[in-house]
Amino acid sequence: MRHFNEMLRARWAEGKCVCIGLDSDLDKIPEVVRNNISINTLSGIIVKFNRRIVDATHDLALAYKPNIAFYEAYGDQGWIALRETIRYIHEIAPSVPVILDAKRADIGNTNAGYVLMAFGNLKADAITVHPYLGREALMPFLNRKEKGIFVLCRTSNPGSGEFQDLHLAVERGKSLPFYQWLAHSVGKTWNKNGNCGLVVGATYPEELESVRILAGDLPILIPGIGAQGGDVEKTVKAGVDGNGSGMIINSSRGIIFASSGSDYAERAREATLELHNEIHWHLTQRVA
Amino acid sequence: MRHFNEMLRARWAEGKCVCIGLDSDLDKIPEVVRNNISINTLSGIIVKFNRRIVDATHDLALAYKPNIAFYEAYGDQGWIALRETIRYIHEIAPSVPVILDAKRADIGNTNAGYVLMAFGNLKADAITVHPYLGREALMPFLNRKEKGIFVLCRTSNPGSGEFQDLHLAVERGKSLPFYQWLAHSVGKTWNKNGNCGLVVGATYPEELESVRILAGDLPILIPGIGAQGGDVEKTVKAGVDGNGSGMIINSSRGIIFASSGSDYAERAREATLELHNEIHWHLTQRVA
Repeated sequence: MRHFNEMLRARWAEGKCVCIGLDSDLDKIPEVVRNNISINTLSGIIVKFNRRIVDATHDLALAYKPNIAFYEAYGDQGWIALRETIRYIHEIAPSVPVILDAKRADIGNTNAGYVLMAFGNLKADAITVHPYLGREALMPFLNRKEKGIFVLCRTSNPGSGEFQDLHLAVERGKSLPFYQWLAHSVGKTWNKNGNCGLVVGATYPEELESVRILAGDLPILIPGIGAQGGDVEKTVKAGVDGNGSGMIINSSRGIIFASSGSDYAERAREATLELHNEIHWHLTQRVA
Repeated sequence: MRHFNEMLRARWAEGKCVCIGLDSDLDKIPEVVRNNISINTLSGIIVKFNRRIVDATHDLALAYKPNIAFYEAYGDQGWIALRETIRYIHEIAPSVPVILDAKRADIGNTNAGYVLMAFGNLKADAITVHPYLGREALMPFLNRKEKGIFVLCRTSNPGSGEFQDLHLAVERGKSLPFYQWLAHSVGKTWNKNGNCGLVVGATYPEELESVRILAGDLPILIPGIGAQGGDVEKTVKAGVDGNGSGMIINSSRGIIFASSGSDYAERAREATLELHNEIHWHLTQRVA
């Protein structure tokens, strides 16, 4: 049986370090795919594009991370495309885990439906979730020992501080930003099954460093490299754990839309390799 | 053009007060529908059930609130069922708004996909969202003046206090629970387009009362009546605004699964009417 954490650790051991975000926004898919007259469904276009990206990158990828919003936007057609994309990754690259970036969370009874969606229907290996309803509500996710559950901690968007940076009144007159309290809670009480991770944006390296200190060697999923402006050097220095790994550094648009021409797959591979080498360089510098 | 807030106020003016949660879990749909040999798709079963519930209740309903998790669990088939259900409500009961309980939220660029999903593909009138990424990320939702945007504030689940009750250090040595700060923020700075609402569970009447005080006459969506144990009298007293309305009290399982027999639609109507009358009674008592 597939086991997310084991797969992740095996990929890290092989030196893989780039998570590829399959945010396959139909409007940005190259015309050469969209105008292909042999494809006559919307899902067919998205799948064709994703398959070529996967073909060109799977030997380099640490993981794939499709963001479900870009698929849901097209209803059932998008859904079919997402399911077929994940099925294809499992087939062509069975050792590469798929993280479903779905940012779900509801009350427990309802989360059971989301669990069925993510792990039953779509067959993802991991999922991202919102923390707001607390651990009790998320138990249907947390009970799945073989899956990865990534809790949003400090998100990459410009306004993420509105709530995440608010200071909580903790004991003895001390206070702590909300996202740090969350990192502490997830590491200490949510991770009983050893299947939790955190999401921290590359756009906030200082916050990332503080989360790494609080979270020990919990895997941290780090979006925000590339189009969003996150810096690779700062990210690696801030996010690496004591074993020299622990990071899932994601790039989406910077890889999959590296070219809008017919060379999109080759250019996606080049962009992956470039980011791979850059991360490795900074990891090496750190050790030296 | 449909305008959520206008529709909601018109329904309130007509005395409607029950929101019906179309949490149409396939496993709980009566056998008489599931075993109907003339229906040969999964989406067909769900749609058949929902149509009969809508037929039997739309003259009484303030709104319908399908929770998307119960549909997503069945992938593209669930999606087709949800879209067809909403289309049917718009057709048969054009004055009854549909609140998509999707609890979405991502960074701004990605939320544009969710907006397309909810308002373009599914044609919902309103949506529920998570607050954690802050107002800036939610702008693609908040910019839609004609839609309702319900922000999770104090959720109905037993463990909702884990984060929502944590006290924030605010100025001059004062502190405030997180959910109250959120209610204040949404009312004061998120509601520029007059399209915001809050979600507060009926299972927490004291918290509901404090949110009502902070949020003025913002619409409050109140799940948790019925199966979850929320009390109608306490809910009405705590949640009503200065105009004697402002509440969207939701019941899901208590209405749609009131009977597992062939009389499920009639029993759903009876359960709706019963809750309607109970709410009205307590509203009247309050005025008297």
